[in-house]
Amino acid sequence: MTLDTNDIDTRAIRPESVSAWTHDADVVVVGLGGAGTSATLEAVRAGAKTIALERQTRGGGTSAVSTGAVYFGGGTRVQKDCGFEDSVEEMTKAVRMAAGAQADDEKVEAFAAGSVEHFNWMVDLGVEFKSSFVEGKTTHPFEDDCLFFSGNELCHGFREGTTPAPRGHKVARPGEAGGFLMEPMLQAAEKSGAEIINDCRVERLIQRDDGRVVGVVAVHDGRTCFIKARRGVVLAAGGFVMNERMLAEHAPSLLKCNWKAASAGDDGLGIRVGLGAGALASNMSEGLVLNAYYPPSDHCKGIMVNSQGQRFINEDTYLGRTGDAILQRCDGRAWLIVDDELYGRTQAFHKLAAVEETFADLEKALGFPEGELVHTVETYNRWAARGQDPFFHKSADYLRPLSVPPYAAVDCTIEGSIFAVFTLGGLAIRATGQVLNPDRQVIPGLYAAGRNSAGLCLEGRTYASGLSIGDATFFGRVAGRHVAALEPWE
Amino acid sequence: MTLDTNDIDTRAIRPESVSAWTHDADVVVVGLGGAGTSATLEAVRAGAKTIALERQTRGGGTSAVSTGAVYFGGGTRVQKDCGFEDSVEEMTKAVRMAAGAQADDEKVEAFAAGSVEHFNWMVDLGVEFKSSFVEGKTTHPFEDDCLFFSGNELCHGFREGTTPAPRGHKVARPGEAGGFLMEPMLQAAEKSGAEIINDCRVERLIQRDDGRVVGVVAVHDGRTCFIKARRGVVLAAGGFVMNERMLAEHAPSLLKCNWKAASAGDDGLGIRVGLGAGALASNMSEGLVLNAYYPPSDHCKGIMVNSQGQRFINEDTYLGRTGDAILQRCDGRAWLIVDDELYGRTQAFHKLAAVEETFADLEKALGFPEGELVHTVETYNRWAARGQDPFFHKSADYLRPLSVPPYAAVDCTIEGSIFAVFTLGGLAIRATGQVLNPDRQVIPGLYAAGRNSAGLCLEGRTYASGLSIGDATFFGRVAGRHVAALEPWE
Repeated sequence: MTLDTNDIDTRAIRPESVSAWTHDADVVVVGLGGAGTSATLEAVRAGAKTIALERQTRGGGTSAVSTGAVYFGGGTRVQKDCGFEDSVEEMTKAVRMAAGAQADDEKVEAFAAGSVEHFNWMVDLGVEFKSSFVEGKTTHPFEDDCLFFSGNELCHGFREGTTPAPRGHKVARPGEAGGFLMEPMLQAAEKSGAEIINDCRVERLIQRDDGRVVGVVAVHDGRTCFIKARRGVVLAAGGFVMNERMLAEHAPSLLKCNWKAASAGDDGLGIRVGLGAGALASNMSEGLVLNAYYPPSDHCKGIMVNSQGQRFINEDTYLGRTGDAILQRCDGRAWLIVDDELYGRTQAFHKLAAVEETFADLEKALGFPEGELVHTVETYNRWAARGQDPFFHKSADYLRPLSVPPYAAVDCTIEGSIFAVFTLGGLAIRATGQVLNPDRQVIPGLYAAGRNSAGLCLEGRTYASGLSIGDATFFGRVAGRHVAALEPWE
Repeated sequence: MTLDTNDIDTRAIRPESVSAWTHDADVVVVGLGGAGTSATLEAVRAGAKTIALERQTRGGGTSAVSTGAVYFGGGTRVQKDCGFEDSVEEMTKAVRMAAGAQADDEKVEAFAAGSVEHFNWMVDLGVEFKSSFVEGKTTHPFEDDCLFFSGNELCHGFREGTTPAPRGHKVARPGEAGGFLMEPMLQAAEKSGAEIINDCRVERLIQRDDGRVVGVVAVHDGRTCFIKARRGVVLAAGGFVMNERMLAEHAPSLLKCNWKAASAGDDGLGIRVGLGAGALASNMSEGLVLNAYYPPSDHCKGIMVNSQGQRFINEDTYLGRTGDAILQRCDGRAWLIVDDELYGRTQAFHKLAAVEETFADLEKALGFPEGELVHTVETYNRWAARGQDPFFHKSADYLRPLSVPPYAAVDCTIEGSIFAVFTLGGLAIRATGQVLNPDRQVIPGLYAAGRNSAGLCLEGRTYASGLSIGDATFFGRVAGRHVAALEPWE
């Protein structure tokens, strides 16, 4: 059953129009992905009678279809076992950079200070992280290994500000392991004493005239339910990348990306439900845009060029930073230029746009202006031979002249390759998870977490893998604790 | 008296909480800039009892501090007198491109089809436009001349899609002439029979529980007024570029711009008042960003380069397109490179970043990577000598080799030059001016126009001068007519 949720009336209703409550709880959690499951577990632990509502047949959300990488640091068991030093101070600096120019210091500091405890909490729930480290540039460890540099930690513009440490922690299963992250968490929620109602879509909030949120209207088994939330409601129903209308309204450039890093629930309904109660949506134009031109790490020894045959970025940067640059700065037109030695080792599934014996032929084949790619490579090679990149300061590890023909152009255009995307905007929240209205006042009884909110990381160009699930689970817990401690209105 | 309007509670109140109405009208217009004055005039003409509320001591708004250029076409008296052919069809095509990728066809078509009538309406009010044309690239005619190519009409990516025609019409006064645009319009409004209340700040809407907007709460002379709007309310209170908090929430990149093309009222209060009644704000991240490196037109014969010494745009493009590229694509770092012949004629108030006898010395002085500017100029000159620009397709009119030393770099960085900015996001409206909620349903009785709304043009990179006032005055009139025809709720 699918439904265009854009047709749903999401305006909050008044409690006076509720003829009879069908369910009642202290806390109602909307959505059982990483954020909602975490909120549920903490609300229950704090003694709140909790009902969690999931639109799909079972929870998991987008976290369950992710790679299963979570951003932790400050000295986790895995970091220590693998011989990496980290501290709350260094992690705070790194997360502040990763969160973007508008980073909320309160969120950044809480996230870093609580990260080791958060890691241990997840492990105690049964999520497995192996004490192993994977070197090099990758989207995520492909086997059951754990630790990796998941962002820009080692790259120019970031490495100078901190002592780099790897903080991507992937769940101990091969391949995309998000399911193995969410399964133990879901099972814990199912056993927690929370009432979980699947196949249940929340469409509106119930809100008193003074602004207090007191419940939700949901549809379950074709029946409309009025669910009382004596303490409050946590919206954790995901982002809006699956909603083309909302993308057009708020983030039109993301419409060009051809692969949604999302699940069906990321259609923005949770955001609209919040707006329907007077919430502020902020940061709505931002998203994470990924074009996975590595692994292999060796691809970072190639050069990324635009349609003028010019470099525009340090190629060893995080994929979200490159993806953003290709989309926003290069009109979605870029190619990775490699020589035969680099390409011979690739595992990438990108198409080749051209292969030629000389750079002159390659630039002709790609339709670049005459002489430009030749000039770019000559200059790059001259500096790379000295281990320097005065243009974009790529790490010396990835600097070597391109000199083994034939030369290939890996198609990184938005038409010819996979651009994954999810949204980083949503309901404006405080570090407590409390939702704000456009006057920056708290809407009493309303919380949000995960991609339903404008959370920890606000820019794709500074993002690191694992931050979204890190944010969702960490601040989902914060919201669950805070709402459980709220004075009941009844 | 100034007040941080961010502290104002903008949530709509219910009519039940109004103890006594202090004023009553059919139509209430909020803000007397270009949009609100136009709405007022049309509402009165349609027979509605109209009250117009202005925050400042007198109306005019941002239109009054503008250059006084309005985008008209389709065959205005001025276009004809100056020998230019134009048609509704050609104007529609041009406006569609200028409005950006998410252009609303209904708005585009209405605006083009009604443009000659709109021009005549303004002339009938007493606004003067001289039948004279100014050639070349300029921000606006500096004397009392009228017609100019105010956007990308003659530039690559735009000229191919239409028969170019000049559509910027400046009011017949020297210098920045926005005051001479607004003065006759304001006088007409003052004589129209509308009740105009100055020094009156609207803070909240009055809205029934079913969503119908029935009035406004305003503060005048320190007294709270409850002003009944039997038919509806038009929000025409400007954009939000003067509000740093809102910029940070929605359009953080615009925070870097150092000159607000705005008046004090553009603090987003009108947008927040709409949000307080459940409206949708859309396109909030977009703005017009201008760095006026021309006039003189000859500056377009220079080359604009980034911090790598590389070109990135056709230099004859509209200033808003270049400004966007410098800010969003080049991290705010760009320089216009000219030779002595070009610079000798400049009237620009930009600083020179460096002057040298050779390009090799110039690139060194600017800290560019060695050899890059030299290469860029060599390549550019070679093609320019043939009248071609295979890189960015600058018009042949502006192609000639840079060859007369000394060579200068005009500072176009965001730190070293003036970047003017205003916002292009606001309340989502239909082509009627009716405000939409996040479900895309009309909020009955609520209208918006001008920069209070997400209007006709949604992208700075496609914008043309005169479009914002064109939009505000045209769709302000549309809103005034539509609201006046609405069934009164009482």
